[in-house]
Amino acid sequence: MSSENNDHLVQSTDPEHPANLIPALCKQFYTLGWVTGTGGGTSIRKDDHVFIAPSGVQKELMKPENIFVLSYPTPKYPPSARQYIRKPIDLKPSACTPLFLAAFERGAGCCIHTHSQWAVLVTLLVEKMSGTAACFEISNIEQIKGIPKGPGKGMLGFHDTMRIPIIENTPFEEDLTEHLEKAMEQHPDTCAVLVRRHGIYVWGDNVAKAKTQCESLDYLFQLAVEMHKLGLPWT
Amino acid sequence: MSSENNDHLVQSTDPEHPANLIPALCKQFYTLGWVTGTGGGTSIRKDDHVFIAPSGVQKELMKPENIFVLSYPTPKYPPSARQYIRKPIDLKPSACTPLFLAAFERGAGCCIHTHSQWAVLVTLLVEKMSGTAACFEISNIEQIKGIPKGPGKGMLGFHDTMRIPIIENTPFEEDLTEHLEKAMEQHPDTCAVLVRRHGIYVWGDNVAKAKTQCESLDYLFQLAVEMHKLGLPWT
Amino acid sequence: MSSENNDHLVQSTDPEHPANLIPALCKQFYTLGWVTGTGGGTSIRKDDHVFIAPSGVQKELMKPENIFVLSYPTPKYPPSARQYIRKPIDLKPSACTPLFLAAFERGAGCCIHTHSQWAVLVTLLVEKMSGTAACFEISNIEQIKGIPKGPGKGMLGFHDTMRIPIIENTPFEEDLTEHLEKAMEQHPDTCAVLVRRHGIYVWGDNVAKAKTQCESLDYLFQLAVEMHKLGLPWT
Amino acid sequence: MSSENNDHLVQSTDPEHPANLIPALCKQFYTLGWVTGTGGGTSIRKDDHVFIAPSGVQKELMKPENIFVLSYPTPKYPPSARQYIRKPIDLKPSACTPLFLAAFERGAGCCIHTHSQWAVLVTLLVEKMSGTAACFEISNIEQIKGIPKGPGKGMLGFHDTMRIPIIENTPFEEDLTEHLEKAMEQHPDTCAVLVRRHGIYVWGDNVAKAKTQCESLDYLFQLAVEMHKLGLPWT
Repeated sequence: MSSENNDHLVQSTDPEHPANLIPALCKQFYTLGWVTGTGGGTSIRKDDHVFIAPSGVQKELMKPENIFVLSYPTPKYPPSARQYIRKPIDLKPSACTPLFLAAFERGAGCCIHTHSQWAVLVTLLVEKMSGTAACFEISNIEQIKGIPKGPGKGMLGFHDTMRIPIIENTPFEEDLTEHLEKAMEQHPDTCAVLVRRHGIYVWGDNVAKAKTQCESLDYLFQLAVEMHKLGLPWT
Repeated sequence: MSSENNDHLVQSTDPEHPANLIPALCKQFYTLGWVTGTGGGTSIRKDDHVFIAPSGVQKELMKPENIFVLSYPTPKYPPSARQYIRKPIDLKPSACTPLFLAAFERGAGCCIHTHSQWAVLVTLLVEKMSGTAACFEISNIEQIKGIPKGPGKGMLGFHDTMRIPIIENTPFEEDLTEHLEKAMEQHPDTCAVLVRRHGIYVWGDNVAKAKTQCESLDYLFQLAVEMHKLGLPWT
Repeated sequence: MSSENNDHLVQSTDPEHPANLIPALCKQFYTLGWVTGTGGGTSIRKDDHVFIAPSGVQKELMKPENIFVLSYPTPKYPPSARQYIRKPIDLKPSACTPLFLAAFERGAGCCIHTHSQWAVLVTLLVEKMSGTAACFEISNIEQIKGIPKGPGKGMLGFHDTMRIPIIENTPFEEDLTEHLEKAMEQHPDTCAVLVRRHGIYVWGDNVAKAKTQCESLDYLFQLAVEMHKLGLPWT
Repeated sequence: MSSENNDHLVQSTDPEHPANLIPALCKQFYTLGWVTGTGGGTSIRKDDHVFIAPSGVQKELMKPENIFVLSYPTPKYPPSARQYIRKPIDLKPSACTPLFLAAFERGAGCCIHTHSQWAVLVTLLVEKMSGTAACFEISNIEQIKGIPKGPGKGMLGFHDTMRIPIIENTPFEEDLTEHLEKAMEQHPDTCAVLVRRHGIYVWGDNVAKAKTQCESLDYLFQLAVEMHKLGLPWT
């Protein structure tokens, strides 16, 4: 990996190439307030590779050469087969990496992590209203139809109750992995997990689905906070 | 329709051509928070054609070749004469189509559907304050003058009460059509119908009128929500 | 005025020319939410001419050729000497024209009219808290230093109380003129007048001063609304 | 300094040169609402020079030639050695200059001053809740990890309490210097000082650190205001 460092993996003139798409997405997410102050992150799986935004970089200024690449052979290989095949000099890999991989192991093609304030506020409101509840629930809002019922099951209906599990935050981001995987097992139909006082992980079959699901969820969280201020119940 | 698929209908170098205008408008609406997560839509009628944004596409990334075209012969023809004369491959037509057509049958040249959170919150506040009321009402705000009194009747005055009917949402968007048409009949002067827990349909003689009326309404809904938080009455 | 229509008055390659500056400013004001749905307006006086944005145009799409020009001979001439020397075909002059002129008669070089929701909410809160009060007052906020004490008197200090007079709205915008002029006489040091349930007029020696004073005022109105929500007094 | 005025100090084709970077940053800060109406400012130290945005200029329109330059010899020289070696004609130096220098004397490479409304509201809420408290405190929010524990001590942890000292505002900005320096001495680990009813000063080793720390702080202030509205405690 030394001298050449597989730079060709992040060099492409195709705007849809993951190494070009991740910086463009992160710039857009910055304007949405999702990745303020180097928070949050994004990862895309394509064929046998996983592309990951680095840690600690100003997300609106990211460049293709800042992207980490992980080998990701098809599922017959054990997770231990994953390893970095491109590491930008002077940058640290994202602490979210094992969390992104947890989504990819379940078939996702893209995973987005945001520090959206609406997501954080919703986790705080759920804690305040029903301390032991481990889910955010909302129903009878049209935008719910932007969230899938589960893999291969179509989208939620207007009268369905959308449930997004909430896990507790941990001091070190990588320690969230175990809790995230447990939530994924207990809620096999969910496309997202909220992290209390932290943010959210959202995934989807591809970039378009992960991004639009993340947008629909953020819309619902913002609406839920405003509804709470106005004394309107969520379900 | 097979091979040629009438692609020429969406190819133009004129930025005012509906196939160019709809993507530009949707991109602007995205930044206004009106079409988050593929929600909402826009349609323009021009001569004997109706141009419609597709379903399920990221609205800020839409392209002219994504636009559906419906034949729309002059009103002497029955509604059954409407049919798709251009369908982009791999895209689904918007479920809003019959709702847009309902506006066009009443003479509109453009119809905009948003999922604006201010519109949704206003429908929830009206429900909370007076469950049976089927209208949002506000008066004595200058921006009301941006809303027409009715077709050919000029604009509302400062002291007039603006009334926007509210219909209940249905699980399938196309099932709204009957309720929308009924509201249009009961309120022949309105240029918009709110859909509870969903959003709004706004129309106008042309793109400029539909868009600026949609903006004025959204301004009034946002103001109304803030007024409610501050204990200020709407009328 | 017929055939030639003095088009040269709005044709310049200088970005600082009023006919180029007004569209650029209006586009910026649109993103600030000040001129939603064709509301609001802007006017600049330069030498013997006054340049005015037209009525009813989408403010973010305005072009130099849409600008009205009024002859404005030096103050020795009576107000009756003012007359349009350029009128764009198919556009209506702004109903704000006499209000802009009232500012110019008092030495302003630029006048901005916005429908900012923060301005509207502040007028409603003042009405609610002290029905007869005809002023918005705030003190001990650093941004107050962005507002002048009065013509030729320097800027307000941190401990000074900023007072912006409020006049009642009228059904026709031109009827505001008399009330605006009376408020200007009673408050000869003010650089702005709020209009209840409508918005604000802000003026300054030149474009930079009118714009930055309008920004500082809007900042203070937004802060005042948030302070009210949080139970924090304005003075 | 007369004729040549050291213009070469602000002329560079490198976008990372302080004279190019300050205008670009100020434009970005304008869109974040941090430098509305000419408020706020930014300064960068590089080698033996300090570059400072001027006073009273529209921050989104600033140009490299508007930048002031101060000689800043390495720390062995006394503070009295600092003097302007480039002054743009017709512009006034920033009243924040001594405050920026106080940060540079403590090793900072960049200092940002904003009038963010969230910062102002937080200082007002602290005053209301505990009049004598001279600190804003928050804990158990992930974004706290974007703030350093102190020079050379790494970043705060999730369970750490972030403390940002608050000083009282003074009528003249330069009079803040003494209070700012005292707060810096009492809180040697802080990277920021809030100014009651005014805004905040944030610094860091370099531009990227100062900016991302300023973003993380603003995120936390906004979240804190929303938490207060929703009855959620900060610690």
